[in-house]
Amino acid sequence: MVEAFHIKEEDAVRVDGEELRRSTIAIFEKLGVPAEDSSRAADVLVTADLRGVDSHGVSNMLKTYIERFGDGTQNTHPDWKIVSERASIANIDADLGLGIIIAPKAMEIAIAKARDTGVGVVTVTNSGHLGMAAYHAMLALPHDMIGMCMTAAGASVLPTFGREPRLGTNPIAIAAPAGEEQPWVFDMATSIVPVNKLHNAHRMGSMLPPGHIADSEGTPIMEPILAPETFDLLPLGSTREQGSHKGYGLASAVEVLCSIMSGARWATQLPRWSFRHYLAAYDVSAFSDINEFKSNMDEWLRELKATPTAPGHDRVLVAGQPEHEMFIDRTANGIPLHHEVVDWFRSTCAEFGVACAI
Amino acid sequence: MVEAFHIKEEDAVRVDGEELRRSTIAIFEKLGVPAEDSSRAADVLVTADLRGVDSHGVSNMLKTYIERFGDGTQNTHPDWKIVSERASIANIDADLGLGIIIAPKAMEIAIAKARDTGVGVVTVTNSGHLGMAAYHAMLALPHDMIGMCMTAAGASVLPTFGREPRLGTNPIAIAAPAGEEQPWVFDMATSIVPVNKLHNAHRMGSMLPPGHIADSEGTPIMEPILAPETFDLLPLGSTREQGSHKGYGLASAVEVLCSIMSGARWATQLPRWSFRHYLAAYDVSAFSDINEFKSNMDEWLRELKATPTAPGHDRVLVAGQPEHEMFIDRTANGIPLHHEVVDWFRSTCAEFGVACAI
Repeated sequence: MVEAFHIKEEDAVRVDGEELRRSTIAIFEKLGVPAEDSSRAADVLVTADLRGVDSHGVSNMLKTYIERFGDGTQNTHPDWKIVSERASIANIDADLGLGIIIAPKAMEIAIAKARDTGVGVVTVTNSGHLGMAAYHAMLALPHDMIGMCMTAAGASVLPTFGREPRLGTNPIAIAAPAGEEQPWVFDMATSIVPVNKLHNAHRMGSMLPPGHIADSEGTPIMEPILAPETFDLLPLGSTREQGSHKGYGLASAVEVLCSIMSGARWATQLPRWSFRHYLAAYDVSAFSDINEFKSNMDEWLRELKATPTAPGHDRVLVAGQPEHEMFIDRTANGIPLHHEVVDWFRSTCAEFGVACAI
Repeated sequence: MVEAFHIKEEDAVRVDGEELRRSTIAIFEKLGVPAEDSSRAADVLVTADLRGVDSHGVSNMLKTYIERFGDGTQNTHPDWKIVSERASIANIDADLGLGIIIAPKAMEIAIAKARDTGVGVVTVTNSGHLGMAAYHAMLALPHDMIGMCMTAAGASVLPTFGREPRLGTNPIAIAAPAGEEQPWVFDMATSIVPVNKLHNAHRMGSMLPPGHIADSEGTPIMEPILAPETFDLLPLGSTREQGSHKGYGLASAVEVLCSIMSGARWATQLPRWSFRHYLAAYDVSAFSDINEFKSNMDEWLRELKATPTAPGHDRVLVAGQPEHEMFIDRTANGIPLHHEVVDWFRSTCAEFGVACAI
């Protein structure tokens, strides 16, 4: 974890995840979201908080979701439907439903298709914010499947050599089950960091590491800099010499598979609240023996974790490990929220007339 | 293109691609490879040379392939077979066939499954070197499909904070058709660069940009350095602060999908000549209207290329564009090979008793 994006301990109030969940469900229900969908939405948010993905938890996202349900840019009762389907794929029009609610339904379809044919791919257009992409990929794990989730977002990232943003932060998440080890859960923005991490850094008055943003003319800033209020993000790689064309290309791949393949428009052509998703499930047992797979995953993960370290580092991590460790800690000790967020949450509960458990 | 990896004009001899192809086919046939497979193998190599992907062309790879057929680590007549199959997936044991020959056959199966079910995924284990990954992804293009190709290779890349290599350069390639524009063709190593690019840089006595390799203890070298003979590669991102955990995670994802999902072992557990592949095809027309897709691809690609530029740069490129421009140039003006490579090729032709057209 990079220091710039951590909440300072003196600003933090620890709140209980289950209590945060209860109040969040109640707020969604007051907004008019059906009970089951409200539970799902709260689960996506609180799971992000518990895993330490603060950028996608209650504190960063709930306010936006409330606004979008309020101004009608998001539908509480979307008439979502499959507009195109084959044995192993489906393409869904989400009717402006919220991504955190629609994506799990799409993933269920992908899982069913994977069970039938080996792999299932479901695209979603006309949707809302997806939340933490790993959440949806992880839905495949209890089915002994590998899950994948990507989403294409509004333009905030510069293409290599460009001075105007053309692509979203377009994350890619993949989750694979293991046996005795924790599942391998990978979730990366194809930009250098997600937009919300920079908003948090700005709010906290933090310095940014080199290679995160460009100056107003599009030149990558390669010195530490105080996090500004507005910015254009660099793709993963930061500069051409260090591979920014790869981050730019990965973001483009996400746009092609989420948006253009499914007949949707793209980052620059849509309002900021309109998102496109791609969800996939692979039935491992269609390819090979699931028990051998799990024991191989265990052995491979243990080997990676046992890699001798470079000076100044005490361990090599695998994807999902820091988030799982954070999950254990925060489940036991609570989620550290900024005291201003706690104040906002309490006043929001009061406004909606729901009991505030935190 | 980064200067360190370019052949110097004064060292180059321009050779005709078709003549290079003819002699390469003849060499494969003399090695005992069937005629059709020899043509395919030569096409993969010469296509890489024509597209400017010198690291994966005749000059860098043919010598290795000759050695591997010679010492029996690669089979000229592999008894490759599908070991597991469902409606939209297959898993192939390549019986030590060469990847450049087996992968196109696997892609044909993926394409047929995509036509039936919307998407097709084929994994290949016990295979040889794949060549340029984009080649196989591009096989989907004439079918109005999106192609994807990945391969897991021997350990040469450090995990973030590690001092011993645990993963291969594990490239990811995706090709999507367009209408009037050239297809979008993306092909990246998940390491900072492919191994062969560094071998070329060493041979040419070039300086490496910062962030390409680590010192002997695993610490990323963040200054320019003369390309050494042996090295451990850094993942895309170079350092943790600039996202090396993402390059490391992407390389791991390729290992999971190519190797572990298909029941194979992985980078550190296999000899260097043993590769695992993943090929996929998406039938665009299963998701949306193919004509609308192509016109959207055209519009999106033109918009990216028209992005205003940062100072010092005259254009924003899209994936596959430099390679296509190189293809036009080299088809017309020949492929620049190092004069030592030309000498080696001529003596190899003599050794095998085949006419040397270059």
